Amino acid sequence: MHTTKDLQKKVSEIFDNKNYITEPRDLYEPIQYSLSQGGKRLRPLLALMACSVFKGDLNKVENPAIGLEIFHNFTLLHDDIMDQAPIRRGVPSVYKKWDTNTAILSGDTMFVLAYDYVTNSDPSFLVEVLRVFNQTAREVCEGQQYDMNYETQEVVGVDDYVEMIRLKTAVLIAAALKIGAITAHASAEDAQNMYDFGINIGLAFQLRDDLLDAFGKQEVFGKPIGNDIVTNKKTYLYIMAYELANKEQHTALDHAYSLNDRAEKVAGVMEIYHQLNIREATEKKIDEYYQKSLSYLDNVSVAHEQKSELYSFAKGLSLREV
Amino acid sequence: MHTTKDLQKKVSEIFDNKNYITEPRDLYEPIQYSLSQGGKRLRPLLALMACSVFKGDLNKVENPAIGLEIFHNFTLLHDDIMDQAPIRRGVPSVYKKWDTNTAILSGDTMFVLAYDYVTNSDPSFLVEVLRVFNQTAREVCEGQQYDMNYETQEVVGVDDYVEMIRLKTAVLIAAALKIGAITAHASAEDAQNMYDFGINIGLAFQLRDDLLDAFGKQEVFGKPIGNDIVTNKKTYLYIMAYELANKEQHTALDHAYSLNDRAEKVAGVMEIYHQLNIREATEKKIDEYYQKSLSYLDNVSVAHEQKSELYSFAKGLSLREV
Repeated sequence: MHTTKDLQKKVSEIFDNKNYITEPRDLYEPIQYSLSQGGKRLRPLLALMACSVFKGDLNKVENPAIGLEIFHNFTLLHDDIMDQAPIRRGVPSVYKKWDTNTAILSGDTMFVLAYDYVTNSDPSFLVEVLRVFNQTAREVCEGQQYDMNYETQEVVGVDDYVEMIRLKTAVLIAAALKIGAITAHASAEDAQNMYDFGINIGLAFQLRDDLLDAFGKQEVFGKPIGNDIVTNKKTYLYIMAYELANKEQHTALDHAYSLNDRAEKVAGVMEIYHQLNIREATEKKIDEYYQKSLSYLDNVSVAHEQKSELYSFAKGLSLREV
Repeated sequence: MHTTKDLQKKVSEIFDNKNYITEPRDLYEPIQYSLSQGGKRLRPLLALMACSVFKGDLNKVENPAIGLEIFHNFTLLHDDIMDQAPIRRGVPSVYKKWDTNTAILSGDTMFVLAYDYVTNSDPSFLVEVLRVFNQTAREVCEGQQYDMNYETQEVVGVDDYVEMIRLKTAVLIAAALKIGAITAHASAEDAQNMYDFGINIGLAFQLRDDLLDAFGKQEVFGKPIGNDIVTNKKTYLYIMAYELANKEQHTALDHAYSLNDRAEKVAGVMEIYHQLNIREATEKKIDEYYQKSLSYLDNVSVAHEQKSELYSFAKGLSLREV
């Protein structure tokens, strides 16, 4: 069995020193820039891990895994334009370093590259992989649309929020696991269990991200704490707070969110989060998704030790240090 | 054999009344809007014609043909943002009617939809079709990049211009023909001949478009005459004029292009075009590409009458009325 560390090393080997540059350079340099920033490379890693669970041939999962990572980075290029996000992985985002047109067109080209890698899958599972990939790509677009809609929509229900993060984040994590399983010729049932495991891990992962923004330690989280509060982002915490607040707390929340001073604003919102036990409510929800994810992994019909790395990894993703 | 008219009717049947709307509506309404404006639907028609040349099953070319048309419309959505083009097919372009974010994201979703249709090709030729589709999509992006580069580049050579329109326009026309041939299980050589036929027809078609902008009749061309001149667009005519101009004519061209009054500007540039016989030079080049296209069509190894509709159609595209 391959350890997570082995597979992480393999993912690094696949991506490090990869050169995408060709003519016209104006088109490919932003692609090289985007793909060489690294990041967690979570999706290709999960694809390799899933393939390994079923003792598949890692060479066969490589191309779809690369396709998943390039697709993910393509969505970041376009999302950063739409969200006007100037920084990505600690460096200027592509639309900021170049311009919007460059980010649009280099993004489109990355999308083609992603399909190019997926197309170079073994013909024995190509169609199956493509179907998962297409459906997922479409859902990720839909998730981004809901996310943009919710920015201007006054009230967002908690179920709507969860559906949005399912589409925007969880389905691609789930697809990576399912595609990894498919490349190892897992049964349809096992591939689906891997997918559902991924959906729940993805939801836990995103809620944990929401939680860390408010309750994390900056040196662990890697981003300034309270950013979601400062930008009035409708996170799980925000939505729960408004759902649970009484009239007085509602007014206090509205007031805090209207403040311009960063520190005062964060302190004001956090005060209400504490009063309403938002941290505990979110941790409870994360644990629910985490437990649910495990039930799907339990159902995957291979020996437990084949899945042990995935169990540990899931725990790490869901229960990252606050 | 199917007549062009029959196939045009079939293309209309495929696209008319097609409903792409689903949730979230904000994402799919611009897609519906874009795909229901019609346009020439040249690419799916050519795919059907090519399939028919080899007596293929028209039902089998349908999905790739739809994919080609949706892909083409996706590029228009994004190009219109990049080129700041407010009007498309006589109505506001998507980024203008909605906004840039909508045009980016609905465009991305159309790209996925295009791949979804292509994926639903017969498995016997799926990989071959996908390879043509991927390469073409990438080249179209590259063509758009060159086109944008040339906007700010002072001198553009005629060969560079032709390479740009090959990438931006001709390869998708060629791909439609090649994919049509592939779905009919044509030989690799015949598929390639269809492709090369398409490249040359595509080049002739684009040069004719450049010519019509200056020398066409508005009621036939469907767009205001002289638009390329007014927007300082580096067309084949523009590039040839600068290549052929003596010092005096060069100065006159520079002067004309610097004018603000639309009528004076068009008249000034046209005067030099007339002096330099730009119309004749362009018509000569179009005829060269047209003749070259025919030589490839001649080489396609089916009975001449099987190709007769394609011969007529090529003539119509290349030699549209000025």
